[in-house]
Amino acid sequence: MTNEQHTKNIIKGKPIIGSRKIYVTGKRYPIRIGMREIPLKSSNEKCSSLPPVTVYDTSGPFGDSDMTIDLSQGLESLRETWIEGRGDTYRLPFLSSKYGRIRLNDSSLDHLRFEHSIKNPRKAQHGVATQMYYARQGIITPEMEYVSIRENQRIQEHPHFKNGLIKLITPEFVREEIAAGRAIIPANINHPECEPMIIGRNFLVKINANIGNSAVTSGIAEEVEKSVWAIKWGADTVMDLSTGENIHETREWIIRNSPVPIGTVPLYQALEKVNGKVEDLTWEIYRDTLIEQAEQGVDYFTIHAGLLAAHVPLALKRMTGIVSRGGSIMAKWCSIFNKENFLYTNFDEICDILAAYDVGISLGDGLRPGSQFDANDEAQFAELKTLGELTQMAWKKHVQVMIEGPGHVPIHKIQENMDMELKHCFDAPFYTLGPLVTDIAPGYDHITSAIGGSIIAMQGASMLCYVTPKEHLGLPDKNDVKTGVITFKIAAHAADIAKGHPSAMIRDNAMSKARFEFRWRDQFHLSLDPDTAMAFHDKTLPDEGSKRSHYCSMCGEKFCSMRATQDIQQMAKEKELVK
Amino acid sequence: MTNEQHTKNIIKGKPIIGSRKIYVTGKRYPIRIGMREIPLKSSNEKCSSLPPVTVYDTSGPFGDSDMTIDLSQGLESLRETWIEGRGDTYRLPFLSSKYGRIRLNDSSLDHLRFEHSIKNPRKAQHGVATQMYYARQGIITPEMEYVSIRENQRIQEHPHFKNGLIKLITPEFVREEIAAGRAIIPANINHPECEPMIIGRNFLVKINANIGNSAVTSGIAEEVEKSVWAIKWGADTVMDLSTGENIHETREWIIRNSPVPIGTVPLYQALEKVNGKVEDLTWEIYRDTLIEQAEQGVDYFTIHAGLLAAHVPLALKRMTGIVSRGGSIMAKWCSIFNKENFLYTNFDEICDILAAYDVGISLGDGLRPGSQFDANDEAQFAELKTLGELTQMAWKKHVQVMIEGPGHVPIHKIQENMDMELKHCFDAPFYTLGPLVTDIAPGYDHITSAIGGSIIAMQGASMLCYVTPKEHLGLPDKNDVKTGVITFKIAAHAADIAKGHPSAMIRDNAMSKARFEFRWRDQFHLSLDPDTAMAFHDKTLPDEGSKRSHYCSMCGEKFCSMRATQDIQQMAKEKELVK
Repeated sequence: MTNEQHTKNIIKGKPIIGSRKIYVTGKRYPIRIGMREIPLKSSNEKCSSLPPVTVYDTSGPFGDSDMTIDLSQGLESLRETWIEGRGDTYRLPFLSSKYGRIRLNDSSLDHLRFEHSIKNPRKAQHGVATQMYYARQGIITPEMEYVSIRENQRIQEHPHFKNGLIKLITPEFVREEIAAGRAIIPANINHPECEPMIIGRNFLVKINANIGNSAVTSGIAEEVEKSVWAIKWGADTVMDLSTGENIHETREWIIRNSPVPIGTVPLYQALEKVNGKVEDLTWEIYRDTLIEQAEQGVDYFTIHAGLLAAHVPLALKRMTGIVSRGGSIMAKWCSIFNKENFLYTNFDEICDILAAYDVGISLGDGLRPGSQFDANDEAQFAELKTLGELTQMAWKKHVQVMIEGPGHVPIHKIQENMDMELKHCFDAPFYTLGPLVTDIAPGYDHITSAIGGSIIAMQGASMLCYVTPKEHLGLPDKNDVKTGVITFKIAAHAADIAKGHPSAMIRDNAMSKARFEFRWRDQFHLSLDPDTAMAFHDKTLPDEGSKRSHYCSMCGEKFCSMRATQDIQQMAKEKELVK
Repeated sequence: MTNEQHTKNIIKGKPIIGSRKIYVTGKRYPIRIGMREIPLKSSNEKCSSLPPVTVYDTSGPFGDSDMTIDLSQGLESLRETWIEGRGDTYRLPFLSSKYGRIRLNDSSLDHLRFEHSIKNPRKAQHGVATQMYYARQGIITPEMEYVSIRENQRIQEHPHFKNGLIKLITPEFVREEIAAGRAIIPANINHPECEPMIIGRNFLVKINANIGNSAVTSGIAEEVEKSVWAIKWGADTVMDLSTGENIHETREWIIRNSPVPIGTVPLYQALEKVNGKVEDLTWEIYRDTLIEQAEQGVDYFTIHAGLLAAHVPLALKRMTGIVSRGGSIMAKWCSIFNKENFLYTNFDEICDILAAYDVGISLGDGLRPGSQFDANDEAQFAELKTLGELTQMAWKKHVQVMIEGPGHVPIHKIQENMDMELKHCFDAPFYTLGPLVTDIAPGYDHITSAIGGSIIAMQGASMLCYVTPKEHLGLPDKNDVKTGVITFKIAAHAADIAKGHPSAMIRDNAMSKARFEFRWRDQFHLSLDPDTAMAFHDKTLPDEGSKRSHYCSMCGEKFCSMRATQDIQQMAKEKELVK
């Protein structure tokens, strides 16, 4: 590696403007949970300062100004000792995947390869090392304590906290939810760098950001940069959907530098291995890909095992056919060979593989509707019922499961999706893409999907997959990734408020108070995107004095209603004094 | 006027790309209703062409390529003969408003003045010339036939139209809705250039765009340009909220060139007349302003008559006090003088003035909540009940009424707003600002409010006031206006689909079909914003060939699911043939 390359790999940790990284320590375990603290300035100089607002933080070490990250070394192994401490895993002498070994031994890839890639992956000694397994044994793992503290966002230290009125999320509650299958902690034992997070409808709504190059475009550095960028703004998990060359190597770089769970669709890589020819796709190639990725540390796999050969004719009658990439591949495979989906027929073995590394399954909705017209149709719900059947098979093997959901759905048909999912999939977490509530707004589908996303999240969906403004039109760039993440943070947060999550309103209240008191800097800092809020404000009133003025350019000084309210309050006070 | 100025005032009509203006003629009356037709190209060259899609069009003559508009002359007087034909109005010898006469005779304003301003405004002979009055007499006006045809968007000519299955909106239905107060047609008899439109929950959801300079900024030309820009993208009404100098002259230019209803908040101008000093505000100044604006042709007034002196203490207890400009002015006035709101005490006379010109009332929600915390509080609902009382007073005088609604409201509290409005205001149309479903996203409040807007519109709100990305931060520019309009078209359209408006799904279905058949140009043209959709697509695949390719850069050729579906369909067909 040249010096120049090396310098490019060094990243100085940097929180979002106006905030700082803090750490809360565990009670059961010696763990440190990172959060983001936003200090506030009192408007009244005589008063002591206002309590800071603590918010959920997905940025990991990249958001800590005391940290310097060397991408070529990867992040620290936060969970290494926890996993080791359970004493139920061992290190393999070499990679189990044939493809993994070929890539490792190919010296022509040396310049691309992550130097410290896992060469001796960890595996369960007795076939299972999943959080669900431990939860069912009554064991509270460090991961469970971690997420319980993380979810509470330090609300118990807030002056508004009244024990009894506001219920804290306890490690035991986390354990129960995981044991019941209502929540998952995606945390592969080969991804020790991952900060545990929980996906379930009794927790904060999460969002996923997709990254990944397509055949033509970006390189490894660019994808790692996108991933770090997405978690800076709040992506709770990142799916690497790369379909180009060197995706094995790209993935290793991403995982080793990711403090959030990484998801993939192994089918994409399996298809790349046969040069895109569906007719050459086999269970053996797919199986080797699963193992390859599991041993790299992927935390959850989207697996399109619920799309049965019998469902295909239902989908062909549709307005927009099949719109899931994985779904269309499997449907094509079934049609070519006149056989049942090999992901379905081999599902038991899939679960065995996943259980040994604690990879979660995200059961893919290969038949999600691609248009308002196709929403809630026979094809979609037939597959959903099969997903429920597969959920129970996975749970028998203690594999953590979530269910993928649509897609394009008009507002009045959203509730049925949630109801059907809970019913047929036994309360497994629902992970939806949108839904998009109209088809006619390409260029703005982050908005059409945030509308549907906030509604279904309020109804119970646990994680929303973001949609960027480029949806239906092209591959998103860095700006699109940020817009997608912020838009879905809005949808998720609006749902958290509507669901009454204990800590959800703290930040809104702090923002509103700052607004009423014309604390402009506090308003910016409490925003989901302080940089944009500040830039918009400064466009018309750039000078420093305007950060303290009791109006903005929207209404001007004379017409500021909040300023008038304060005048009225003053009058009311004076009248009181006269009495 | 110099030649150069004159050239600047000439605008060539131009529809949104990929569409053309068409006109549908009336049956009862000799009227022509403008619509926008989007022709489609069949993907199969052997087939005859696909039926075009007709969509609602707010652009007026500005969207007709056969028209040339001279802004200094104003638009043609579409409704002049209709109004004249009713024979119940007369022309005044001069402006009734003192202020109006002063401005007209001030030669220092000559360079600003719209040359052909109305000097002899029309007024009702017997005190009332409102659409509600006619409707109650059983009269179907040309305005009513106009909106009935407009709402149907030519659906009866669509091949999917089955009479009996899809119910058309009839002129008689429009009349009934207006007579019952469930809908309004804001159409001042002094705004004959206005193309009638209807606001009511049994019709398409409408959106309003606010324009207007604040003290510092833009001139007349800029405001007219913003207004034309807003209606190009779909604003159904435009509110001119100018608060600077020369707002009388600016308004005249805007109205004379507006094919959509113009709304104002007369209180803003009244306050300007007393140099922003609330203590100098009087009923007489306000009354003269009402008449001044009514005689210019403003179609609806926001009037904050429901905020009573007794409500003020309730608002002072809030997190964010009063956030309505008009509300805060009246609350301050009540507090200064220890008197009841003069808009409330003079409401009967206000209604008499409005009835004589057919100006609609939009009853302002001066106490709408400005934060999630304040939503649905005592102050808000106390005012809402007063608005209901005022609604009945206005209806007695045959004045058309709509009710303004919030504001900042968490998702789970939106339904209560709709329920309370219908109950306390007797089904009068609800016109809401958002609601914004979280407070923490300045810079993205077009999105937070579109989420709430689509939900409340589905529940029954009739018109949504747009919010731009600059909300809470500064005055919107032209780009912000467009983003606000498109975002709210999404919210309104999603609600139309959810409500099952007869013509709502036609465009979505056409889009989905175009998507599945890779008719890229048709997709762009069917979009709410073809320019942006095309620009996003062309960013990665700019060449002409890509407009016909069976994939895009999002998934690439190998991974295109729609392409795969077509392969599977082909296989299914071949199997059928073998049988």
